[in-house]
Amino acid sequence: MDPYKSLREEAYEANMEIPRRALALYTWGNVSAFDRQRAILAIKPSGVAYEALKVSDMVVMDLEGKKVDGKLNPSSDTKTHIVLYRVFPGIAGVTHTHSTYAVAWAQARRSVPVLGTTHADHCTHPIPCTEYISEEALKHDYEQETGNLIVATFRSQQLDPEEIPMVLVAGHGPFTWGASAAKSVYHAAVLEEICKMAYLTGVLSDDIKGLPAYIVQKHYDRKHGANAYYGQR
Amino acid sequence: MDPYKSLREEAYEANMEIPRRALALYTWGNVSAFDRQRAILAIKPSGVAYEALKVSDMVVMDLEGKKVDGKLNPSSDTKTHIVLYRVFPGIAGVTHTHSTYAVAWAQARRSVPVLGTTHADHCTHPIPCTEYISEEALKHDYEQETGNLIVATFRSQQLDPEEIPMVLVAGHGPFTWGASAAKSVYHAAVLEEICKMAYLTGVLSDDIKGLPAYIVQKHYDRKHGANAYYGQR
Amino acid sequence: MDPYKSLREEAYEANMEIPRRALALYTWGNVSAFDRQRAILAIKPSGVAYEALKVSDMVVMDLEGKKVDGKLNPSSDTKTHIVLYRVFPGIAGVTHTHSTYAVAWAQARRSVPVLGTTHADHCTHPIPCTEYISEEALKHDYEQETGNLIVATFRSQQLDPEEIPMVLVAGHGPFTWGASAAKSVYHAAVLEEICKMAYLTGVLSDDIKGLPAYIVQKHYDRKHGANAYYGQR
Amino acid sequence: MDPYKSLREEAYEANMEIPRRALALYTWGNVSAFDRQRAILAIKPSGVAYEALKVSDMVVMDLEGKKVDGKLNPSSDTKTHIVLYRVFPGIAGVTHTHSTYAVAWAQARRSVPVLGTTHADHCTHPIPCTEYISEEALKHDYEQETGNLIVATFRSQQLDPEEIPMVLVAGHGPFTWGASAAKSVYHAAVLEEICKMAYLTGVLSDDIKGLPAYIVQKHYDRKHGANAYYGQR
Repeated sequence: MDPYKSLREEAYEANMEIPRRALALYTWGNVSAFDRQRAILAIKPSGVAYEALKVSDMVVMDLEGKKVDGKLNPSSDTKTHIVLYRVFPGIAGVTHTHSTYAVAWAQARRSVPVLGTTHADHCTHPIPCTEYISEEALKHDYEQETGNLIVATFRSQQLDPEEIPMVLVAGHGPFTWGASAAKSVYHAAVLEEICKMAYLTGVLSDDIKGLPAYIVQKHYDRKHGANAYYGQR
Repeated sequence: MDPYKSLREEAYEANMEIPRRALALYTWGNVSAFDRQRAILAIKPSGVAYEALKVSDMVVMDLEGKKVDGKLNPSSDTKTHIVLYRVFPGIAGVTHTHSTYAVAWAQARRSVPVLGTTHADHCTHPIPCTEYISEEALKHDYEQETGNLIVATFRSQQLDPEEIPMVLVAGHGPFTWGASAAKSVYHAAVLEEICKMAYLTGVLSDDIKGLPAYIVQKHYDRKHGANAYYGQR
Repeated sequence: MDPYKSLREEAYEANMEIPRRALALYTWGNVSAFDRQRAILAIKPSGVAYEALKVSDMVVMDLEGKKVDGKLNPSSDTKTHIVLYRVFPGIAGVTHTHSTYAVAWAQARRSVPVLGTTHADHCTHPIPCTEYISEEALKHDYEQETGNLIVATFRSQQLDPEEIPMVLVAGHGPFTWGASAAKSVYHAAVLEEICKMAYLTGVLSDDIKGLPAYIVQKHYDRKHGANAYYGQR
Repeated sequence: MDPYKSLREEAYEANMEIPRRALALYTWGNVSAFDRQRAILAIKPSGVAYEALKVSDMVVMDLEGKKVDGKLNPSSDTKTHIVLYRVFPGIAGVTHTHSTYAVAWAQARRSVPVLGTTHADHCTHPIPCTEYISEEALKHDYEQETGNLIVATFRSQQLDPEEIPMVLVAGHGPFTWGASAAKSVYHAAVLEEICKMAYLTGVLSDDIKGLPAYIVQKHYDRKHGANAYYGQR
């Protein structure tokens, strides 16, 4: 019996959403599922094609970055995931993709303004874009420092990672998270669509002020507020 | 025997066009089918994934917004649908999506000019875009007032909802309608394509005057006029 | 025995390429196959969905625009096809679509310059765009005069319809033709791709001079010249 | 027994990636697989549709451009492939496509700057774009001189074809290569995605300086450096 089976399954299912939703080509992308009680995560192995991926390939890691179980090397981005699990309370899934429009905003080093309710349904703030990682940080430990860069961006701008479950790393691409691996990859797909809509809006109008705050808040609260009435409860 | 079976089936089939035609991701979109004689509508339940949707999940509502039959909560946009059924004569289907190009025009708060015959085949006027909903209206009853906003836009501009079966709600997205649920979702797909074509045209030319009125009228009349000769009659 | 069976099959197969290659939504598009010896054409019936289309639905027409065989009404664009068969020598197929990028260029009323070898492989000239049809012509006989407008555009600019098997009708969309129905719909797919490539190129560079004439000619001759060496001969 | 069977299979499999990954319409594209020891290559036959393509159709050629085995004519671009095999050490696969965004950059005659890690993961330099081929070279031997043009571009700019496994031929489109036929078509898909991301980034920002050199180098080294740690080794 594999004591990590259900965690591996959760990670596997979420990883398979990446090719299904066309969020990355080839092996570019990874999702992890986190078990906060046992303080372990299951993550995609590095460089394995989605078509060949099996549940048992998922690599189980602890929060020190040591392998707990698995034959393969974990995703090269594992340390970034670990920093997010360590610092952001309540999250249990992290996703990294190279989805096209999100990468374009990250390459343009622009935060994505709240232009409509599709964005506000998921997040009341602009999607932040970090600075480029510094050379010093990169040389220290690139993947860990990428996690630290995300955390520093949220802290310096006083952003709440529960309200804004996504970020663009400048020159690189998106990281998203959520209460489960499935939620984190859902946020990756949402982010890509928000980025595409915002891109098109910017071409249609060079005078974008963004959605009034009362509409933003209303849409967020419909889905996520104390009196939320979207969905089946 | 379910006395609402055929209405539910009509709503279900039309809702399933949303993922088939890629008019929204996940659960973002809803179609209702209206029985004017019985003054009831069948609508998608809120937040249920299309892959899991069943005919019996469709929620039957009356025009007061009360549930007539069904186990699930109706779409959170139900009140908007009800306003349109109450005010616009002859319509029997309403669709709301977050299709990408239609949302981009709604976010840019621009009406879509009549640039070609693809547009004129379906509608002789620009697709109107509302103002942002006011804070007062939003606080009163957001979804009902979204319906009222659409109605007010048509009245103040003296537009005929039978001739223009579609609207963009500023900062939000498209609502479309028609003589059946199927027609309303057809109009949602048409609108998305018109919005994409108009977007591309605007990039290709910054001097868009639009199609001459006599061509617009001719194309509309070929399909919808008293002497229409398009299709099989 | 249906004496028009093979002509109908040719038309049917070519029509089915329209949805397969995403050249039009719903019923917006039509292909005809022409038998020059019998002076008859088989064309898609008007307003019939591609999923429901059968070989036997194809309508057989003569060059006077009279129905020779078939139960359904022919495409409302039939007269445009007939003009092209009457005037352009050697063609045996005509296609009309509303493909997105070709429509955008037609709506912008711009000819498509020869920017690369993808274009030159098929045609050595810019793809012409007509003027808007005049009100007088439209009132006389819209579809026939659309054919006349295409012919007049080619004559006034001294273009050879065999070398340029495609045109954009201003504010409307593309018509393409060829030595068979299959070739005409091939040209419709080629045109859409050329239009997309030219659109993107225009965004990347505002100083497009176009491919030098000697490269244009070489690529065309590789495929279509007296000493062509592309393909299997 | 076919002594070229495995080489043909390698070429066939790589060619079939072109339609699977939508890198070209119809027959526009070709991949070859090279056996450096025997100094022969297997290449797609000219003008044969991918749906009809069989392993045994692959044409075996030597480095003089003479057919070694096969019934069909080889791709008209065969001489370009041969030049690259002759001059670039270590490569064993070449791919040519007409993928949309790569062609747009080639038509705009622009090199693609390194804007993000998706690019840097594969190549540390801008993707070079050649000059237009000269009329003299074209008249001498178009396909061979296209190969020479690529080689001259790399030499004059002192570029290493192992580090930059891709090029845009001005007004034409992309050629890519790699240590196998599969790698070369992988690079064709990567190039298309890089070109799309760079296109979108350019629209979002008119002040693109590009990724700092230390990030570029780090990403390349993660995958390709002496201490690479991406993937399973």
